[in-house]
Amino acid sequence: MKEKLTVIKIGGNVINNQEALSSFLADFSKVNGHKILVHGGGKRATEMANDLGLQPKMIGGRRITDEANLEIVTMVYAGLLNKNIIAELQKLECNAIGLSGTDANCILAHKRIVKDIDYGFAGDVDKVNAPAIKVFLENKMVPVFCAITHDKKGQLLNTNADTIASEIAKGMSQDYDVELIYCFEKNGVLQDVNDDNSVIEYINSNSYKDLKNNNIIADGMLPKMENCFESLQKGVEKVIIGNPKVIADKNQKFTTLSL
Amino acid sequence: MKEKLTVIKIGGNVINNQEALSSFLADFSKVNGHKILVHGGGKRATEMANDLGLQPKMIGGRRITDEANLEIVTMVYAGLLNKNIIAELQKLECNAIGLSGTDANCILAHKRIVKDIDYGFAGDVDKVNAPAIKVFLENKMVPVFCAITHDKKGQLLNTNADTIASEIAKGMSQDYDVELIYCFEKNGVLQDVNDDNSVIEYINSNSYKDLKNNNIIADGMLPKMENCFESLQKGVEKVIIGNPKVIADKNQKFTTLSL
Repeated sequence: MKEKLTVIKIGGNVINNQEALSSFLADFSKVNGHKILVHGGGKRATEMANDLGLQPKMIGGRRITDEANLEIVTMVYAGLLNKNIIAELQKLECNAIGLSGTDANCILAHKRIVKDIDYGFAGDVDKVNAPAIKVFLENKMVPVFCAITHDKKGQLLNTNADTIASEIAKGMSQDYDVELIYCFEKNGVLQDVNDDNSVIEYINSNSYKDLKNNNIIADGMLPKMENCFESLQKGVEKVIIGNPKVIADKNQKFTTLSL
Repeated sequence: MKEKLTVIKIGGNVINNQEALSSFLADFSKVNGHKILVHGGGKRATEMANDLGLQPKMIGGRRITDEANLEIVTMVYAGLLNKNIIAELQKLECNAIGLSGTDANCILAHKRIVKDIDYGFAGDVDKVNAPAIKVFLENKMVPVFCAITHDKKGQLLNTNADTIASEIAKGMSQDYDVELIYCFEKNGVLQDVNDDNSVIEYINSNSYKDLKNNNIIADGMLPKMENCFESLQKGVEKVIIGNPKVIADKNQKFTTLSL
């Protein structure tokens, strides 16, 4: 039987609030078994760009990563945010190791091909180096990935953290029973976007089609969900979407996705 | 017989010059056997501080690390510089992994105790986690350390890169035959500080005393040399001081220190 591995992704709502982050990391440190954390940090990167007099360009919620902004996300994600998370986890006796996709060639990507929009140094993931990540897990290290990858030609690339989480989850699913947890600002996928108590507790491929057809799942939630179902199709056991407390308290409501 | 491990330290003269850095990394990628790279980056951190409108405070060549400057060195050393070095080494088929002292608890330090000068968040090294670093080496990963450590109480600390190199060299010397190479802007320890050809090729504890007494080794070179001899006393096999080319071309002049 394969061992369990939990891949957890946190975003801006946790990263940008020191209290929320500390509380989350305390919960994360207590998660049993193998685990991997993936973090974003876009808001802090935007603040840093502003402090440096740069205007980060966004199109459709996605950052256009020119050379100056690549420097900033590399500094903020892989340096400032990642190392502070590691220091906090080490304090909590969780043997964390901070990684980007270039470290030990963990995540190989290519620069996004220009169609309508030139996203600059944005990376689309080609391959997760499962044997390397396994070395860390088997040696009782807890990988914490920031959203930076590389192309193995010397170029760092800014990569969507949701995508990194699902790619890692898929990539590790041959060796582990993988549960992928997306922590975000809502309690789960909502029946009524204005009512945080209207969590849809279970969604499978069939009910997902209905929810899409009835426009209950729409807009920004759609690519997230497509990502999740693709992960399930590629071997991930279970995907959970909920607020950050979900990793400690399974009594609260959250959304579970299955095929 | 123990396997050989080469610990190499580079500083600002290499880091701040893209051409010199690329040339050095090409040479580094070809160094045989186990190897570890330690890099500084103070000049780039100072530039970033200036870009952010901060005036880094220095006393006797040492940075006073207040909270804002700690953020900057964490970003610049562990993020910007470290990850770009890793991406470049990966391109060169060198399986590098970027680390700070907090990652996998590799280097434990404490905040420097205030005597005459309060250095702020400056770290003095207590312990190198040899078993963790050995995991990387045994799995064919090449650790690349930036000069950030932690106190395992959640605090990151800015630490002298020369010190990190010698502490790692000492810490690994029980398991490996360690050669420690300091690359700097001169060709070695010089008989005449104004003549770069006057390299003193061999120095041992006795000749070191003479060189000190005759004021040939003085000023900034003294703490470097004390560091080197302490490393030798604590088990490091050999210390070499030279320019960055020394790692590829052993025909040029450089200084070898032994007990």
